[in-house]
Amino acid sequence: MSTMETRPGRRQYVKFTFFKVAADWRRLDAGLRDRHKAEFASLVEGWAERNLVRCYSTVGTRGDVDFMVWQVSYEMDDIQRMQSELLGTDLAAYLDTPFSYLSMTKHSNYVEKYSGPGRDSFTRLSLAPGEHKYLFVYPLTKVREWYGLTGDERQEAMNQHIAIGHTYSSVKLNTTYSFGLDDQEFVLAFETDEPGDFLDLVQELRGSVSSAYTLTDVPIFTCATTDALGMLDAVAASPARVPALA
Amino acid sequence: MSTMETRPGRRQYVKFTFFKVAADWRRLDAGLRDRHKAEFASLVEGWAERNLVRCYSTVGTRGDVDFMVWQVSYEMDDIQRMQSELLGTDLAAYLDTPFSYLSMTKHSNYVEKYSGPGRDSFTRLSLAPGEHKYLFVYPLTKVREWYGLTGDERQEAMNQHIAIGHTYSSVKLNTTYSFGLDDQEFVLAFETDEPGDFLDLVQELRGSVSSAYTLTDVPIFTCATTDALGMLDAVAASPARVPALA
Amino acid sequence: MSTMETRPGRRQYVKFTFFKVAADWRRLDAGLRDRHKAEFASLVEGWAERNLVRCYSTVGTRGDVDFMVWQVSYEMDDIQRMQSELLGTDLAAYLDTPFSYLSMTKHSNYVEKYSGPGRDSFTRLSLAPGEHKYLFVYPLTKVREWYGLTGDERQEAMNQHIAIGHTYSSVKLNTTYSFGLDDQEFVLAFETDEPGDFLDLVQELRGSVSSAYTLTDVPIFTCATTDALGMLDAVAASPARVPALA
Amino acid sequence: MSTMETRPGRRQYVKFTFFKVAADWRRLDAGLRDRHKAEFASLVEGWAERNLVRCYSTVGTRGDVDFMVWQVSYEMDDIQRMQSELLGTDLAAYLDTPFSYLSMTKHSNYVEKYSGPGRDSFTRLSLAPGEHKYLFVYPLTKVREWYGLTGDERQEAMNQHIAIGHTYSSVKLNTTYSFGLDDQEFVLAFETDEPGDFLDLVQELRGSVSSAYTLTDVPIFTCATTDALGMLDAVAASPARVPALA
Amino acid sequence: MSTMETRPGRRQYVKFTFFKVAADWRRLDAGLRDRHKAEFASLVEGWAERNLVRCYSTVGTRGDVDFMVWQVSYEMDDIQRMQSELLGTDLAAYLDTPFSYLSMTKHSNYVEKYSGPGRDSFTRLSLAPGEHKYLFVYPLTKVREWYGLTGDERQEAMNQHIAIGHTYSSVKLNTTYSFGLDDQEFVLAFETDEPGDFLDLVQELRGSVSSAYTLTDVPIFTCATTDALGMLDAVAASPARVPALA
Repeated sequence: MSTMETRPGRRQYVKFTFFKVAADWRRLDAGLRDRHKAEFASLVEGWAERNLVRCYSTVGTRGDVDFMVWQVSYEMDDIQRMQSELLGTDLAAYLDTPFSYLSMTKHSNYVEKYSGPGRDSFTRLSLAPGEHKYLFVYPLTKVREWYGLTGDERQEAMNQHIAIGHTYSSVKLNTTYSFGLDDQEFVLAFETDEPGDFLDLVQELRGSVSSAYTLTDVPIFTCATTDALGMLDAVAASPARVPALA
Repeated sequence: MSTMETRPGRRQYVKFTFFKVAADWRRLDAGLRDRHKAEFASLVEGWAERNLVRCYSTVGTRGDVDFMVWQVSYEMDDIQRMQSELLGTDLAAYLDTPFSYLSMTKHSNYVEKYSGPGRDSFTRLSLAPGEHKYLFVYPLTKVREWYGLTGDERQEAMNQHIAIGHTYSSVKLNTTYSFGLDDQEFVLAFETDEPGDFLDLVQELRGSVSSAYTLTDVPIFTCATTDALGMLDAVAASPARVPALA
Repeated sequence: MSTMETRPGRRQYVKFTFFKVAADWRRLDAGLRDRHKAEFASLVEGWAERNLVRCYSTVGTRGDVDFMVWQVSYEMDDIQRMQSELLGTDLAAYLDTPFSYLSMTKHSNYVEKYSGPGRDSFTRLSLAPGEHKYLFVYPLTKVREWYGLTGDERQEAMNQHIAIGHTYSSVKLNTTYSFGLDDQEFVLAFETDEPGDFLDLVQELRGSVSSAYTLTDVPIFTCATTDALGMLDAVAASPARVPALA
Repeated sequence: MSTMETRPGRRQYVKFTFFKVAADWRRLDAGLRDRHKAEFASLVEGWAERNLVRCYSTVGTRGDVDFMVWQVSYEMDDIQRMQSELLGTDLAAYLDTPFSYLSMTKHSNYVEKYSGPGRDSFTRLSLAPGEHKYLFVYPLTKVREWYGLTGDERQEAMNQHIAIGHTYSSVKLNTTYSFGLDDQEFVLAFETDEPGDFLDLVQELRGSVSSAYTLTDVPIFTCATTDALGMLDAVAASPARVPALA
Repeated sequence: MSTMETRPGRRQYVKFTFFKVAADWRRLDAGLRDRHKAEFASLVEGWAERNLVRCYSTVGTRGDVDFMVWQVSYEMDDIQRMQSELLGTDLAAYLDTPFSYLSMTKHSNYVEKYSGPGRDSFTRLSLAPGEHKYLFVYPLTKVREWYGLTGDERQEAMNQHIAIGHTYSSVKLNTTYSFGLDDQEFVLAFETDEPGDFLDLVQELRGSVSSAYTLTDVPIFTCATTDALGMLDAVAASPARVPALA
């Protein structure tokens, strides 16, 4: 559990790094693999004492990635240094990073106008992930026509969007911004315990005005909350750990 | 044959995982490869006692994948755990998963309105694959304009679509939903014994209204029903097993 | 030369499989490579006694594939089994299949209406490749607007298309259908001895009505007719076989 | 620090080369890796005595590249020779170059008309990177409709674009041209110490007229300024170098 | 220097093959690598006595390819055989061919109408590369709407295009045709000593009518003229060969 203190009024750097373990890592001795996992997990846990760091497994939900580390910090240097250290582990000799999303927090005019003054300046600038079982992450880019609408037109579209979202109270949204820092405009991260609720929400939003201005919103990552070692164990469960199936 | 009990009113998690065996697996000793196959097949068979699990070969129908495992469960944990265990086998050191589709079942308003009340709530929420020889799977995403149509317009388009489908009685459709869980909106799985019938159906549907609102419906996977060991044997038939060609 | 008997009124399964040999296969001993080639060629020749099987080299015409095997059979099982056996050879440990197209034959209403009753039902349902030196293969998908035209509009467009084709008498067309079976709608295979004639035909067709409704018609494969061993020898000509350049 | 002399009136060749280190490089002995890094860094430093050469780390900001070398020279031969020598190092046996952008400097009519005569001819033909902490690089291609506008229409759009840029005084832009030399039309490189400012600038520019004529402006690379050895050390930080986390 | 005799009235086959050397080739002993290069270069030089064969380095201008061999012959067999022999060298065990373009020469109606009768029939059917330092190569495909214009409209557009080209006298164009033979419609190869002139020409052509009908014109390859051994030496310059930097 992260212990990073919130600094009011300061924007945060946000990083979603998706890892895939090379198939030939599985040819290594089980003991060696355990040492690889312990070193990597220990490093992640060390960083969780300074930054907001969360661990997720994508085994079974996607075929192109195995796990994801979500890091939030007030310093870009932390983002780069943690990755540099992860790449210095022995496990990194068998790791690839097929997807990587860099973003920042930002005050949202839309939410403030919808919710009333002051509310958003607190919640948007510092992320506070809850304890939900699933996280759904995707990069979002709007078509340029969206930015050609008037402010009122966009506010109206966002009001509709936010209102639909509010009817699914089990789903919490974290919005981050990537303009100029990475290939997408936004990275969205939704938390919920009920995948079916999120599915229904996304399907209902397809009919909204703002949805019609989406250029791309894939890939979509279904991520299951876990801890550092659980995230790595899931990459290759050994029979000894699955007695129920013996 | 799966023995999972149906739980009325509960939605199911659905997973289609396509595997490809690395070419250099074929450089291994035949005995070792047989042990790899036996371990993997045994694990799949064990899961088939708890979940709905079906095995398919794509050797010869596509060049980018070798076989597919179709898993259905009421628990997302099962989807992740089975894949985690498959990745823990010795064969997994030579496996890649080029395509992977996660979805859920969902009640369909379209079908209920077309067929009358009550019929769909049963058939749609729990999948019940038959014993047909071929399965045709593809991810589907509609253009956003589809969601801008009125409910009546969409219902009318779907009525036409369903009616055409009904004229091909040898083809059975399983519709699943991926909104927000994976890159596509739907994953469709058609069962039939006659590939030519399915080909003719798809060609005829090209002229339907709903087809004009398709954004993407590829890749399309032609999958042949088999069992766990047959699915693995097909990856590399040894001469000893093909006496007819001696 | 294939000896498969024609079965009037029955549709055929058609498979175009493009192979690429891994670069490191060339690091093997020449004698071992010769045994690899002999085993693979022998298997292909065995199948040519039961199915229509043709061999082509793409060395020098493309950079992403080395050779292609064209198989036609009345049984889908044959398509899958031959590929399974090819993957069981020693050479397969060094083979990839970057492109693969599965299709079927089908009666064409367009051709019958253009040519008169009865003619097409014979020629379209069973393929009969000639002895031309080159084969040009590509997958074709039309835009959905094509299927929104009336039958008369499409027939008129096809009449123009067929008429242009007939002015190039040295070029023979084999049309096959992939709707629902594979990613494309059609796989077209043109035979000719004169690449320049085919180039001119394709350029002239660019101005036709039906061409304007093309969504995608690439990749385009220029394939040179050869036999099973010639197809494999071309993958890496040894100096001893090129005395003219000594 | 580069010492290349400016030659007034001469155009420069500009190269952005993004490198990725193969995962298996991390399996080598640490001492050997240090020698690899020293050789590569020494070569880069040697070239920095003749050309403008800057080093950047992308570890943690992207998943597909590890570092970038920015080279500017009045001679194309220098661009090719430096890369040839870098590829001759021992490290190069473990390097890939996933992204590479070649461009030239060019006098800008837009800037001259906006800023007044003479100003641009100096600043645009020779690049002079400052000492800012971050560099944001992306290739840009406009839609062809942009080139169908009249000169006045384009000038007006660029005036708006430049004016917005001037309100972010902490951000400095380097514009280079790739027409016919590489896949993109322009390569843009922005320098700043504040990523958040650049993010806000790019978001604000989304509403500009010229932005509506963008065909593609990705990938976007967030690059952190460093020196040759720091750029290589960041690829895999050893625990000994991260005492704060011990 | 090629010695192939021109055969008036006959069309030529044209091949642009782009090679990339695997990174692990650099792990081989320097003496072995020199033997690899000598064998490959000797084979290329042998073919240059029968066909038109030119060698180019792309090291430093692109990241995805290292060198290109341009071959022109009156026989398709020569195109296939030379590649087959190149793939039979020891170096080929470490080579990939990421890009490959096959085309033919063809008489151009546009040029004849622009230049007057008879001029083009000679220059277009047989290529005659000059001794310029740089070659710029790209595949070109037009949108289908281009082929829906009348002949006069296309001629007018081409007149404008050709006229702009003629104002850059230092740039020479070689146009070749790929319809039906390969994925693109044309392969264009421009020769010049001044990259900046070509850049300015391409930028100026962006405003032409014919440019608006471009579907795709990438990748664009900047290629530096060299000989067979120079092309291979540039792939990895050894320190001993770069004394100026000692």
